[in-house]
Amino acid sequence: MSLTTGELAARLGAVLEGDGNVMLRAVADLRTAGEGDVSFAGNPKYLPDVATSRASVVIVPSTAQVVGAAPVLLRAADADAAFAAACALFAPEPLEMPRGIHAQACVSPEARIGKNVSIGAFAVVEAGAEIGEGTTLYPQTYVGHGAQIGADCLVYPFASIRERCILKDRVILHNGAVIGSDGFGYTVNAEGVRTKIPQTGIVVLEEDVEIGANTTIDRARFGQTRIGKGTKVDNLVQIAHNCVVGEHSVLCAQVGMAGTTTLGKHVICAGQVGLAGHLSIGDGAVVGAQAGVPNDLPGAQMYLGSPAIPRMEFGKQIAMIKNLPKWKAQLKDLAARVAELEAELAQKG
Amino acid sequence: MSLTTGELAARLGAVLEGDGNVMLRAVADLRTAGEGDVSFAGNPKYLPDVATSRASVVIVPSTAQVVGAAPVLLRAADADAAFAAACALFAPEPLEMPRGIHAQACVSPEARIGKNVSIGAFAVVEAGAEIGEGTTLYPQTYVGHGAQIGADCLVYPFASIRERCILKDRVILHNGAVIGSDGFGYTVNAEGVRTKIPQTGIVVLEEDVEIGANTTIDRARFGQTRIGKGTKVDNLVQIAHNCVVGEHSVLCAQVGMAGTTTLGKHVICAGQVGLAGHLSIGDGAVVGAQAGVPNDLPGAQMYLGSPAIPRMEFGKQIAMIKNLPKWKAQLKDLAARVAELEAELAQKG
Amino acid sequence: MSLTTGELAARLGAVLEGDGNVMLRAVADLRTAGEGDVSFAGNPKYLPDVATSRASVVIVPSTAQVVGAAPVLLRAADADAAFAAACALFAPEPLEMPRGIHAQACVSPEARIGKNVSIGAFAVVEAGAEIGEGTTLYPQTYVGHGAQIGADCLVYPFASIRERCILKDRVILHNGAVIGSDGFGYTVNAEGVRTKIPQTGIVVLEEDVEIGANTTIDRARFGQTRIGKGTKVDNLVQIAHNCVVGEHSVLCAQVGMAGTTTLGKHVICAGQVGLAGHLSIGDGAVVGAQAGVPNDLPGAQMYLGSPAIPRMEFGKQIAMIKNLPKWKAQLKDLAARVAELEAELAQKG
Repeated sequence: MSLTTGELAARLGAVLEGDGNVMLRAVADLRTAGEGDVSFAGNPKYLPDVATSRASVVIVPSTAQVVGAAPVLLRAADADAAFAAACALFAPEPLEMPRGIHAQACVSPEARIGKNVSIGAFAVVEAGAEIGEGTTLYPQTYVGHGAQIGADCLVYPFASIRERCILKDRVILHNGAVIGSDGFGYTVNAEGVRTKIPQTGIVVLEEDVEIGANTTIDRARFGQTRIGKGTKVDNLVQIAHNCVVGEHSVLCAQVGMAGTTTLGKHVICAGQVGLAGHLSIGDGAVVGAQAGVPNDLPGAQMYLGSPAIPRMEFGKQIAMIKNLPKWKAQLKDLAARVAELEAELAQKG
Repeated sequence: MSLTTGELAARLGAVLEGDGNVMLRAVADLRTAGEGDVSFAGNPKYLPDVATSRASVVIVPSTAQVVGAAPVLLRAADADAAFAAACALFAPEPLEMPRGIHAQACVSPEARIGKNVSIGAFAVVEAGAEIGEGTTLYPQTYVGHGAQIGADCLVYPFASIRERCILKDRVILHNGAVIGSDGFGYTVNAEGVRTKIPQTGIVVLEEDVEIGANTTIDRARFGQTRIGKGTKVDNLVQIAHNCVVGEHSVLCAQVGMAGTTTLGKHVICAGQVGLAGHLSIGDGAVVGAQAGVPNDLPGAQMYLGSPAIPRMEFGKQIAMIKNLPKWKAQLKDLAARVAELEAELAQKG
Repeated sequence: MSLTTGELAARLGAVLEGDGNVMLRAVADLRTAGEGDVSFAGNPKYLPDVATSRASVVIVPSTAQVVGAAPVLLRAADADAAFAAACALFAPEPLEMPRGIHAQACVSPEARIGKNVSIGAFAVVEAGAEIGEGTTLYPQTYVGHGAQIGADCLVYPFASIRERCILKDRVILHNGAVIGSDGFGYTVNAEGVRTKIPQTGIVVLEEDVEIGANTTIDRARFGQTRIGKGTKVDNLVQIAHNCVVGEHSVLCAQVGMAGTTTLGKHVICAGQVGLAGHLSIGDGAVVGAQAGVPNDLPGAQMYLGSPAIPRMEFGKQIAMIKNLPKWKAQLKDLAARVAELEAELAQKG
């Protein structure tokens, strides 16, 4: 796709400020943009960077104050929407993997493969597995014995779906995601030697779940580890055996959930959050980055810290800790004054 | 496997409470159980969930008080053991991968392959590698040049064993585990430019070690990174070059160990613990979730916090911090009273 | 390689202390060394371990005081350099993968493959990809459509380079690294249901970047996620969409960067650091292990804690918190003394 600044203004219904004949070929952020790039400063925080950007044109809100030698501008009432439209205009064609089974894939004759499926080179589909209509298994993916994959799923290279696990429709697994590795469960004898407890359950990923790259979700000791409809899980997240995550929740990168913990619906865990085992977190709870959760949490509020406490309390704690040097001085001052009072009184005694 | 509630009671030596003719086909936890499922409430915390579970039967301790419209119950003196037996009864047949080398594997003629080995499709075994008797290499696994794998090991898809690393008998590597990636070591010049230090050592995993999905264990700069007999490592753990982990230790998910740190025997690190480099942690130490360890720690006690301190001290610190608002009020009150005393005394002059 | 202690002393220009005829075959650290091993105690912290090591010879600084029944010693003015030279002497031959395309690889006829390239078994190179001269793609690697890989790169098994991403010269990707997975971006409707925002940008890794095992770097929503020249990234690190990392920086294991954050040049983030989104971290900043960064940070200083603060302040805070029990006692004492003063004055009233 290639357009002039004037043509782009017309397409977006934006007001052109500057040369309308500059050629545009791609979209980029202010810091990495170069000649031919459309960029964006929706957030006032980024407006100072507009003048120094090498972008050929920058989309800004109608009322934005741009200082300095700015490039061509496109002013739009809804700058976010205008930029999303620009992204769509310049986006490369989405990849469509070839339909059918690649000659170098290894698909068991005892697997059931739906219509219009794509299975890439060096993919393995074991006996008893089912692949739903329209699903794409990229090259070098693994689908274990008796696993069931719904329709229109996308499974990227090096993702594993272990035996008997279930993916419903439109699930996306990014590269290296592991669905159904063994839960981390052992018995310990008196000498402290561990024996593996068989992990005979499965993982179920409901409709429209997306799982990030190299995220790991362990199969249940028995029954199911379950991720609810529409829930999005980022990269490098650990979800232990028998966890249940409610619908439409969000787990950001590097979150860790210990075994048998339940999250409600619409829960958000920010990056690097840790949740202990056997907990219950209420609907709509928001757990801030790096928080550590040792107890059940009621829903519909935000938590911070390790151990995690309600956001307001955490804010107060941090302020208290910041003020400790001031208190120390006050305490010292009071001690001196009390000593002086004691001396005075003793004198008067 | 399918049994009636009465038959299951007899097999487990449990006391049936309710209908003995309900058909059972599987095992599930209280939250995800449905018709035909055996479930379990060993922990009093879960007893309130028994009445709302859709399980067909729930195993509970003999003396458990179940409130509400409970399903059929099986009461057992050792409910844990009864449930473990039920799990075993209903467990699917364990997977047994076909013995021999798959036609689509790539095994060097210079590798030595033991008896009764299974090597799956698209697995690679490089020259000089040795695979011990009874070991299973799942499809799409990688065994580097000169690596040595013992007997009866299990290596799941996308696990890598890099050149010259050693796995002793009965080691399990889950999907995507990386054994023997380069240690993170560089020299830095005056301009801050880094040059890679060759990482020429190996990783040794002793007998009965289990390594979780997508865990990474770096090879030594020289010599060995070593994980002791019977130690269990969960998913997404990072173990840096030249670390030594003692026998029968446990590293939970997302733990990170920096280079050349030594853990004793029977050490437990809970989830997301971080250990600095060049440390020594004593036998039997327990490091709580998310703790950060900057110093050596004596064994046989528990530590919490970042920086990590003994558990009791940490508990006191948390309590102190919680009470800061109370102290602040006391300090304010004292300051006012001292000012008043000063005023009174001045008046009395 | 095999040498006597005397021959090694001569090669290193070191002073032999003890038997010069002991045969040496390898290099190891003091804890894991055995017969035939050369070991090293450069740091005074490790000198007490020299006597208990099973190494056949230990390199120590010229002036080191070794107590107890030490093995043969080699004293060197620059013990570090002497040991590095010993490592090089005993290092195994570096692996050189066979040049050319393996018969069992799957390389698109529409890919452009440079001279002297090695592409291993079960590797996939999609249409439009370019592989630069001298680059090694280990077995079981994935190079997506239109990806561009420079000269002399090393890509280890199960590493993925997704569509259109760019690796410049001499980039190393360790096992399971994921370059170009989708950024974690969604729009949310009033019911809290998320819709995926197309992630149409790419990842660019500049010259001499090294990426650790199972690290994940997301492609930009638009434009580029970019890692500067000479930057080294350890294992299990998460770098979100549209992040920019400056040249010659270091990200240790398990660091997480949220979206659109910029690191300057020569920045160091220690293990398990978390950085929020849309931040800017100045050149030469050092962020200590497990720190959590919620705000922009000026460069050229060190930060600790979560939320992260300058190192000196953090040290004071930790000291303050440690002293809280003492303050509590002081406060109690003062309260008692003030009460007594009040009583005395009232009496005198």
